[in-house]
Amino acid sequence: MLTLIIAESSLEVVPKEILEHPQIQGYVKKFGKNSEFVLLDKSYHYEAMNKLKWKEKRGRPDIVHFTLLEALGSPLNLEELLQTYVHTINNQVIHVNPKTRLPRNYNRFVGLMEQLFQKSKVPLEKQPLLILKKSSLKTLIEKIKPSTTIALTRLGKPSTPTKTAQKLGKHKNPVVLIGGFPRGHFTTETLKLSNEQVCIDPSGLDAWITASRILSSYEEAINLPEKRFSTIKKT
Amino acid sequence: MLTLIIAESSLEVVPKEILEHPQIQGYVKKFGKNSEFVLLDKSYHYEAMNKLKWKEKRGRPDIVHFTLLEALGSPLNLEELLQTYVHTINNQVIHVNPKTRLPRNYNRFVGLMEQLFQKSKVPLEKQPLLILKKSSLKTLIEKIKPSTTIALTRLGKPSTPTKTAQKLGKHKNPVVLIGGFPRGHFTTETLKLSNEQVCIDPSGLDAWITASRILSSYEEAINLPEKRFSTIKKT
Repeated sequence: MLTLIIAESSLEVVPKEILEHPQIQGYVKKFGKNSEFVLLDKSYHYEAMNKLKWKEKRGRPDIVHFTLLEALGSPLNLEELLQTYVHTINNQVIHVNPKTRLPRNYNRFVGLMEQLFQKSKVPLEKQPLLILKKSSLKTLIEKIKPSTTIALTRLGKPSTPTKTAQKLGKHKNPVVLIGGFPRGHFTTETLKLSNEQVCIDPSGLDAWITASRILSSYEEAINLPEKRFSTIKKT
Repeated sequence: MLTLIIAESSLEVVPKEILEHPQIQGYVKKFGKNSEFVLLDKSYHYEAMNKLKWKEKRGRPDIVHFTLLEALGSPLNLEELLQTYVHTINNQVIHVNPKTRLPRNYNRFVGLMEQLFQKSKVPLEKQPLLILKKSSLKTLIEKIKPSTTIALTRLGKPSTPTKTAQKLGKHKNPVVLIGGFPRGHFTTETLKLSNEQVCIDPSGLDAWITASRILSSYEEAINLPEKRFSTIKKT
């Protein structure tokens, strides 16, 4: 079982300090949102975000959306061999049930996240598929007790996706960390939580590309494509 | 050079026959759109689409959005070894300049596509990055003159992404076809244009997952990860 953590993700509700900004208020009014739980989105709140600390790393829910779609739709996840978590820049953690069928439409995804930040779980009826908790990345990793944790970062040692995945494949319970933010690097605190830092490409790849490269290579490393053909009838 | 064609994609403007439907008219009014060039979107036009032919295969611009992001952000494309086209269900073809930086925000992507359907190219100033033309898939493939065309489809012969990519890697100018629609299969006409039909997973994978699996394996097949480390300095 591989665990993927999308770490320090730019996913959060609009911070109180900029809630009164005209750009936020206009957005709330236009889309009929509950202003306490509006998701921060650089596409619409660019000016309002001007005074925010670490603003380059914030307000990009689309990164979590794409990366989750990439993870949840992977053959590895379909085979129930992947557990995915989203850790946010504000130290909240979303436990993602592997069976979650995420909205493909971005606006519906944003609505779902706003509900999650408000209610801490969705859906409210039946078994929740997404659960939000206050938790540091350290606490999350301590709970998972991984046999190894590899952080994918441009600051790491160069290695191909295949070699990195083969290393992960030798472990029983490995964790891989991917940055869920658009620019910059993991904090020192995050880097300290990993056993290894690996760079799989000399350019900065988008989070969802990093995810697909490592998941695809991991599937190959554990011979998943062949296994699926031998065990699953075509649907 | 690999050519990726996202074929029979569910990307089109609202057909005239349903333009007067109250759901479309409400949408046009709410978002202040030009009603002649509104992109058909199942998320918002579900009821209006009820009477449309092949409605299961239509109104999903998000599929093209995700799959293009997956293709354009790939190391293969960054290395200028990938050419991507979008062929639509209505026989239009978008030539995508590999240097295009697509909007990450879905609503902005929709706006861009609406502009493209209206003006046939974007941006209007300078060198256009996206060009839309009336063209069948047959005409497009005849222009590319590929050394082989492989269609990825659940109707094909089972083969792993790695084996399929190794086969593509032996060709000088191969084309790979991926379905840009949510359900159903390629038409017989499309299948006839391919030299081989290959199924890379027994379940129906999302188009962007299919794209990432084949691109990732193709990069591996041509040793691209190693090459990039030896030629590119970290940015």
